[in-house]
This record gives sequence, structure tokens and C-alpha cells, in this order.
Amino acid sequence: MKKKVTVQTSAKKIVLETDKGVNLLHLLRENNINITSPCGGNRSCGKCKVRVKEGRDKLTGPELKLLTEDEIRMGYRLACALTIIDDLEIELLEEGKLEIVTEGVEFKIDFNPPLKVHKLLDYESDEENTLSHLDILYRETSTDNIDLVLLKEIPEIAEEKEVSLLKYRNKIISLNKGSIKKVFGLAVDIGTTTVAVYLINILTGEGLDVASFHNPQKRYGADVISRINYVQSDNEKLKEMQGVLITGLNQGIKDLCSRNRLESSDIYLMTVVGNTVMSHLLLGINPASLARAPYRPIFTNSLEISPFEIGLEINRRGIIQVLSAVSSYVGSDIIADLLVTDFSSEQWNLLIDIGTNGEIVLGNKQQILACSAAAGSAFEGANITFGTAGVPGAIFSFSITEGGEFSYETIATEPPVGICGSGLIDLVAEMIKNDILTGTGMFNENPAENILNKIKTYKGMKALEIVEVDSTAINRPILLTQKDVRELQLAKGAIAAGINILLKEAGILYQDIEKIYLAGGFGSFIKPSSACKIGLLPKDMEDKIIKIGNGAGLGARSYLLDKTQREKTTSLLARIEYLELSLRKDFQEEFMKSMEF
Amino acid sequence: MKKKVTVQTSAKKIVLETDKGVNLLHLLRENNINITSPCGGNRSCGKCKVRVKEGRDKLTGPELKLLTEDEIRMGYRLACALTIIDDLEIELLEEGKLEIVTEGVEFKIDFNPPLKVHKLLDYESDEENTLSHLDILYRETSTDNIDLVLLKEIPEIAEEKEVSLLKYRNKIISLNKGSIKKVFGLAVDIGTTTVAVYLINILTGEGLDVASFHNPQKRYGADVISRINYVQSDNEKLKEMQGVLITGLNQGIKDLCSRNRLESSDIYLMTVVGNTVMSHLLLGINPASLARAPYRPIFTNSLEISPFEIGLEINRRGIIQVLSAVSSYVGSDIIADLLVTDFSSEQWNLLIDIGTNGEIVLGNKQQILACSAAAGSAFEGANITFGTAGVPGAIFSFSITEGGEFSYETIATEPPVGICGSGLIDLVAEMIKNDILTGTGMFNENPAENILNKIKTYKGMKALEIVEVDSTAINRPILLTQKDVRELQLAKGAIAAGINILLKEAGILYQDIEKIYLAGGFGSFIKPSSACKIGLLPKDMEDKIIKIGNGAGLGARSYLLDKTQREKTTSLLARIEYLELSLRKDFQEEFMKSMEF
Repeated sequence: MKKKVTVQTSAKKIVLETDKGVNLLHLLRENNINITSPCGGNRSCGKCKVRVKEGRDKLTGPELKLLTEDEIRMGYRLACALTIIDDLEIELLEEGKLEIVTEGVEFKIDFNPPLKVHKLLDYESDEENTLSHLDILYRETSTDNIDLVLLKEIPEIAEEKEVSLLKYRNKIISLNKGSIKKVFGLAVDIGTTTVAVYLINILTGEGLDVASFHNPQKRYGADVISRINYVQSDNEKLKEMQGVLITGLNQGIKDLCSRNRLESSDIYLMTVVGNTVMSHLLLGINPASLARAPYRPIFTNSLEISPFEIGLEINRRGIIQVLSAVSSYVGSDIIADLLVTDFSSEQWNLLIDIGTNGEIVLGNKQQILACSAAAGSAFEGANITFGTAGVPGAIFSFSITEGGEFSYETIATEPPVGICGSGLIDLVAEMIKNDILTGTGMFNENPAENILNKIKTYKGMKALEIVEVDSTAINRPILLTQKDVRELQLAKGAIAAGINILLKEAGILYQDIEKIYLAGGFGSFIKPSSACKIGLLPKDMEDKIIKIGNGAGLGARSYLLDKTQREKTTSLLARIEYLELSLRKDFQEEFMKSMEF
Repeated sequence: MKKKVTVQTSAKKIVLETDKGVNLLHLLRENNINITSPCGGNRSCGKCKVRVKEGRDKLTGPELKLLTEDEIRMGYRLACALTIIDDLEIELLEEGKLEIVTEGVEFKIDFNPPLKVHKLLDYESDEENTLSHLDILYRETSTDNIDLVLLKEIPEIAEEKEVSLLKYRNKIISLNKGSIKKVFGLAVDIGTTTVAVYLINILTGEGLDVASFHNPQKRYGADVISRINYVQSDNEKLKEMQGVLITGLNQGIKDLCSRNRLESSDIYLMTVVGNTVMSHLLLGINPASLARAPYRPIFTNSLEISPFEIGLEINRRGIIQVLSAVSSYVGSDIIADLLVTDFSSEQWNLLIDIGTNGEIVLGNKQQILACSAAAGSAFEGANITFGTAGVPGAIFSFSITEGGEFSYETIATEPPVGICGSGLIDLVAEMIKNDILTGTGMFNENPAENILNKIKTYKGMKALEIVEVDSTAINRPILLTQKDVRELQLAKGAIAAGINILLKEAGILYQDIEKIYLAGGFGSFIKPSSACKIGLLPKDMEDKIIKIGNGAGLGARSYLLDKTQREKTTSLLARIEYLELSLRKDFQEEFMKSMEF
């Protein structure tokens, strides 16, 4: 009889069926549920902690050394050491880790990879033709390009009975005696905060595993501007910044290979997307010009490079595809989003990827308009008095009952530690709904009776008390101040102004929009009704909102597996018009208007 | 008043006009007269010896150490130390060096190089457009390609007032602050025996200098087969064979740069031609398959590689073009010949490049047929009893007067040391004309009275005595034996059979041929009447013979300076049909017939 394993994450509950005796870490990986395991399941790093909420389990030896007594008592176990013997309910708890959406919406990827294996038998036995070896190989594989290093290998395979070639588009990239059985690829989404690496079997199209980790460049600054500042006048620092990212990627690749029993040389193709600054830094290209007017990137073009050019440890004959960007602040991650959403039909659709910058795209098959609005870091919890990133304990959902009672949820149901972006949006939406805030964002002078006791003064400002200091002092107080509301207004105002300017430029009304795609990790946690309530997204449009999760990663996977996506990219780029908001005279006015609720 | 400098080489006399006070080495170089000068004119190597036959000259200090007393008495001087003070007649004497034709026929090369300089001023100052730096550079130079290593340099030039780009076809290959003044190229003809490197100013098209030297691979065997044998089963030996050639080329490049006051980094483009084995060895590609049926080369396609891929010391951003070949034994040197001859008109023309192999091409604008006939090494003096290469003292011209007197000329008018290829052809032609040989190539049983005393017996064979041992024993005897005649018959039979098979295949008669191009060093010394007399070339065709000298080198120069030659090459290759003579049943019959005179 199958056993049922219920996996609770902060965002969702997943129910898996499995056989008795299966290892939990193995089960989670098989189902693409990401869990940190740097030691590869060797019971030595202690990172794959889960909390068993229900069900029988048994502690094994090595765990005792890796868990504290408190942890053991609270039900913490190592997934790598847990054998499923009965139904089980567990909770994933990655302490201090961000919630990362590595699995987006369901999306059918066409399987037509640019990388193909050709097997040839006795290819040169036909003595009638006087073609060169290379010309025969070209003819048999419909290619016309090869590097010298590979050309030199032809004599070695010339008399083999069976030869396998790997071709990438029109180029032969690998020659092998016998057959090639393992051909894998990576789709990589390099975010400012998080890097996601998807391992994919190129011969079958199957997605096997995902590695997600913090962008190691974080140590040089949380946002792109501080990273640009760090490297801009010093090539050594630029190399260092590139180096930590490459090292991180190589570690991620190594982990993926080790837990999937692959060699790094089995990986031949890598598709990379990211914001334009990340693309520059990945390649070691100084991004200083992106930070000063006219915000001109060094390049936006797609590139194909060899792994050794940047020190990436995949097959040395492999190809790294870096996707095209639109501009300095609309990167290839947004292009990847567009590859998996609909911007090729008659209807107007809107795509928004909200982070420090909100990238906004509005378009249909005739025209696509894109802009980037500087939202500041309110949505990431910075500049908010009791703000926090999406860590366990962050308030991500909030509501006020009719009776004036507050209720909230925290990530991983931990005791509340602060307010994250989606919690902030919920909070303000509820405050508007309950007349705690006026249309201009000021605290109401005369709030409802049942709320009155929650309006406090904090550092001389009005503030709403969300969490009191409790008697046991487990909870610290959490309040939302007038200044915090102002920060949110600035952030949502920038995004809303960007949307309005695109609508104006396209000559349409927001009611003309058919679909609103919300991309990115943060987008996944936003409550559509709240986003519309505060005016971050157009009013009354919540039914049109589709969360696509990590659309960038999905787009990268699609590009990796479907060679026609290159032409689709070219066609998208030809239609995209980028609007630099900072150069527009009407932006300030729109911004001011959009700040109101 | 101008001074007249008469330069006598073994092959021709050249008269130059110059000013008083000019240095002789300088004058010779300016006029593309090749003279060895490894020290670059520093009066230290003693290699640029010339013999002053007429005219005033003055010995300078350093020469005294570098010349022997005998040499000084006989008029030897160093060209680098000789200042022209009056009319002068000199003789070029490169001891032990082959006569190399580095200057072919006069030929107008279209100047339309694939490498161009673009100067940009304040290229990124237009704030209206939001293009990336790279897109602006692409737009300004009509390019669409760049390597990552160069892309990383863009930030460094981004704010320069003046930037110079070098583009090679559609690719940016160099970025420079300020202007680029020196852009040079090399046209390289890699022969089995000799390598010629032409230095050319790409900005002006001017040919500046030539370096010619023995192919250092000679130490591994004089012909291509022995070199293939040396490397075929051992990659270390292959590397060694490639290495000596690259070292030789680098030395040649260094010499050219030093005597023309250039840096090797001023050289950005190199066009290489050679027979197919040489092309394989240059690139380090094992040519073993060229020596066994079906004589399949590894590649014949044209390639563009980077200097560092094979260790050539020109600008690291430079491009090496390796021209396409036709087959294993019709190489890119023959394609280069075709680029400077006429195979695009209605008339049928024939091209022959005679060496160890005779490459033969017959064609017009509709069709081109090519083959390679194994001539053996008789034309190079090997297998001939008193044969020699084209060294000083080699008999290169021979005639018998009506009175039966023998007269001959030797290279550099040195005392005779043997018979070289062109001398052999002259000799046999005169022997036929004077009935010393019969139509089958046997010595006549009843030769003319006045010849009788020259018919000797040498090692049991009949032989014609060309040079007696003289009383002072300066001359050694030189005879031409029955066996030598047979060797010539084999050699000329192979070439003639090749020509006949091409004529048959084209369905034309030899009278239909308008022009016969004789290419290569050896071709330059052949007396057309003699070649036709012995039946090496079709009878009565001497007026149609055009010697083009080093057509391969000329073709390489043309390819270097005229980008349309790439398309011309493609068009030639599309029309060329290669006939593998060894696979043809009719070859033996034609060969037997063609051996007769």
C-alpha cells in the first residue's frame, strides 16, 4: 500500500504518494521539491532539516550529532536520514532561506532542442565519393561549422565503426567513438538575490532537478546599484564579483551532478537569463554605464560563448547561451517571461515582474512596450520599520475581520518576526478597506471604534499595531507606521505610473487588458485583491491576474529545449519598444497621481 | 643625377634607378628583391652577401670580420653595408639557397580588403537613442559579431573622444583608443620545400617585403609522403612537425617585422595557402588518411582561426584564413593559382603546377577539371644520376649547336655541379632534336658523326657526356644516362597523361586550349619549346604558355586584399570536378602512351 507524504511549505501543501522504505530526501527531489543538501545526502552537512508534524519516524545515528536537543524535541529531522514507514506530514523549513519559486505555472514546452545526437556507422566506407571526412560529417548531420580543436579529433574517429556526433544548430560540437548516452542541459536564472539552476535531460526533455541558492554577489550589496558601485572603477573587483558568481554556479552544478549521478562533462548546453546587470557581471563586463544617464548597457544582444571563456565547469565543448535583453533595466529574464506568456495574439496583455525594480511589459502581436520602474526596496521589506524579507516568521498575509480582529499568517508558521512585501500589501489594503487610511495615505483622524485601540504612536508617528509584545516576550512588537505607508505608496506609485504610461503610449485603457501576468517569486505571494485594492495593479482586474511564478526560469528551460525560441526572441525584440521612464517628462506627474489609493 | 643599379640573378637582370647615398639592402627590399638578412641589416649576420661585378664600392669595418679574404678579393660585399655612390652592377648569390620565385607575373590585385578601420568620434554622445554600446558599434561599422574578450573592452573605450575599430568582414576584431595607423597582413605560401611570406600593408595594399625560407619540416622528409609517414601513428610527432613549421613562420614574421620596423601585433590578417598535406600539418591535423585509398583528406574547407589556436605570433585578435583545397592532392595553392588566372571565360585554359606532383587544371566558365599526377622527383633532380636541385652551379639550360657543340648555363654562373629539372628538359629536348634519342626514348644506335665522341658508357649504360672532367679537376664529370632519360619519361608521361585525361573528360582537343599557365618556381625555369618538344606539354603550344611564377603566393595576396575573392573561391569550388587518376582504368594506358616522345 502506498504511503502518503504531505509536504507543507510556507506557500502550499503538496501531497505525494510513495512506497514504504523510500528515503525522504530522494522523494522530495524526485518531485522537484527543492531542499538544500550541500553534502548530497551524505548525512554530514545537516542542512536538509524538515519538521515532522505527524507520523512515525525514527532517529538515526548521524542525526544526533547534527541536531540540537531542542530541535529533536520539536520534531526536526534530516530528510536524508528519514525512511518513510507510514503516512507522514512534514514541514519544510529552510532557516534564513528565502522562499524561492522554482516551479512556475504548468506550461507545455515544445521539445525541439538545438542540440542533437547523430550516430554514424562506417561513415567513410563509400569509396565512390572523394569528399573529405569533414564534408561527409557535415552532409550527414546537416552542419557546416566546426572548431579547429574538434577538427583535429577527426583522424582519431575516422576508422571507427560507430561514431556519435553532437551538433548544436549548424555546428558539430562533439565527436565520440561509440554512442553518447548522457546529454544534459542547464537552464539558469540569475537573479540579483537568488540563482536557480534547472537540470534537464536534453535527449528526453525531462526536468530532473533544481538547485537554488543565494546569489553569492549579495555580499557586495543587495541591489544592482551597490554592485555596480563596487566594481565600476576597479577591474580586479569586477573579476572578484564575476568570480564568486561563477564559483557559486559551479558549486550548484556540482551538487546537481552529484545527486543525479552525472559528470559535469555530461552537460553540454546552458541557457542563462538574468537582469542586464547580472548578465554583464556573469561575463565579466563592467556595468558602470548602466548606472549613469543615458543608462546605456554595454550589450543587450544574445551571445553564445564557450564554458572556458568564463570558467564554467560543464563539458568544455559545450555552449552557453546568454539571452538577449531589452535595455539596462529590462533584462533577458523578462524576455524569458515573454517566451512563456502570450504577446503574439490580438489581445493586449500585461506582464509585471516586481522586485527592487518593477519591469512592466504591455503588448500584443503588433506592438510591445516595456519599461522599468524603480520601486525601491519596500516590497523586499527594507525601509519598512518592521519589514523583513520572506524568511520564516514573516507576516505574508493579513486581514481584519468585521469585528475588527486582526489575523495574519507567517511563513513556516513561525512566531512573527516582521512584515514581508506581500504582508505589507495585504496590510495596507485592509487598512484602506477599514478606513484606517485615507485616499492620500494618511492615517484617518477618526478611525472606527473597534480599531482605535490598535492605533498607537511610534517614534512620534501614527502606527497600526499588528503584534503586541506578549507577556512571555516571545513576540516582539510589530507596527506599521505612517512612514511605512508612505514607502509603500512610493513603491506602488512607481509601478502604477509605469503601467499608466505604457497604457497611454499604447493608446488603450486598462480595461482593454485581457491578462495580467505576475512573474517572479514575490509576485507569487501577492494577493491579487490586495494588489488591486492599493492600486499597485489596476482596479477591478484581480480576475485577470495569472501568477506565472519563475517565468524567467521557465522561459530559459523553454529556450534550452526548443530551438525555435531563438526566432521567437528575435521577433519579440523587433517589436519591443523600451521607454526610459526617467527621460519622460510625464512620469513625475503620473507618479504623483499613482501614489494615492 | 640618378644612379643605375643592375641586379643580376640567375634568372633575370633587373635595372633599378636610385639616388646616391642609398643603402643597397634598403634598395633591394624596396624593389621586392628578396635577400636573406636575418639580422635585419645590422651588419652582424653576414648573410646578405652580393658580388659587385662593376662599379665603385667601399668596404666598411664590420664587413671585414664577416667576409673571408678570398670573398673580398672576388668582390663579395654585404648589401647592408654598401652605400651606392655610382652606377653599380651586382650579382645576387645566395649560397646553397634554392632559387625561389617570390614575384610572379604582373597582376593587378583589386584593393577591397576584408579588414577595415573605422574611426568613431564621441560615438555614444547621442542620448536620444537607448541602444547598447555594442549596438552602436555594430551600426556604425555594419558588423554583427564580436568575441567576449573584446566585448569586455568596450567599457574601457566607452567614454573616449576618439575610438578606432578594426573590422574583419562582419566582425569587430579590435578596439582602440585614438587611431590605428599600422594594419598589416601576410600572404603565406607553404610549399613542401619552400615557404614564402609576403608582408603587405592592408591600409594601402602595398607589398612591402618577402621572407622566403626552406620549410623546416624538410628534416623529416623531402616529400609529403615521408612527412605523413613520420607523423601518422604518433600525435607527439605530429605536434613536432607542426611545431617546426610554426617556429619557422614565427621567425620569418619576426624578421619581416624587424626589417620593416613593425611589431608583430601590427599584423592582423594572414592568408595561408599550401598543398593539402601542408594545410593539415600547419593546423596539427593528422594527414594519415591522405596517403591511403581512397585518399580522403580530413578537410578541404576554408577555415578562419585565431593565431593562438596554432601558436602564430601575430596580433592575438588577428585572423588566419586557411584557403579551401580541392582534394588531398590538389591543394589551396592551386585554388590560389586559379584566383589569378582566367577560368571564368568561354575559352578553355590549362594550368599546370609541376613539382613532385603535377597539379593540372583544365577549365572554362562552365566547368573545371582538376587532377594530380605523381611525377616522381625527376624534375627536382632526384633519381637523376647527376641530378641536383636548383642550387648555384646547376645546369638549368642546355643546347647543341649545328656543329654539335654543347653549351649550357648554370645557376649563378658557378662551375657546373649537376643537372636541375629545367636543364634535364632542355637536355632531352636537344637530344631528340639531334636524333640522339629515338621516339621511344632509347639512345640511337647510329647517332650523328659529330656527336659520337660524346656518347659514353656509364655504369654499363649508354650516356651523354655533358661535362668532362677537366684537367684542373674543378669540374666533375656530368653525364645523362639511359636510365635518367627513362626517369624523365616517367615524370613527363604522368603529367602528359593527366593532361590527356582532362582533355578527354572535357571532350576537347589540345588545340582548343587558349592559354597554358605554368605555375610554381620550377615552371618559371622551364623553356617552353623544350617542354613541348619532349611532350611534357602538348606539341606546338609553346606560344600559348604563360609563366605565372608563384601564382599561389600571388593568389594568397589577392585573397588577403580583395574580399570578393572568397566568393570567387566558392564559385570556383562549385565548378571544380576532381578526378582521382589512380582510380581511373584508362590512366595506365594514357600513361604508357604519353611516355614516348
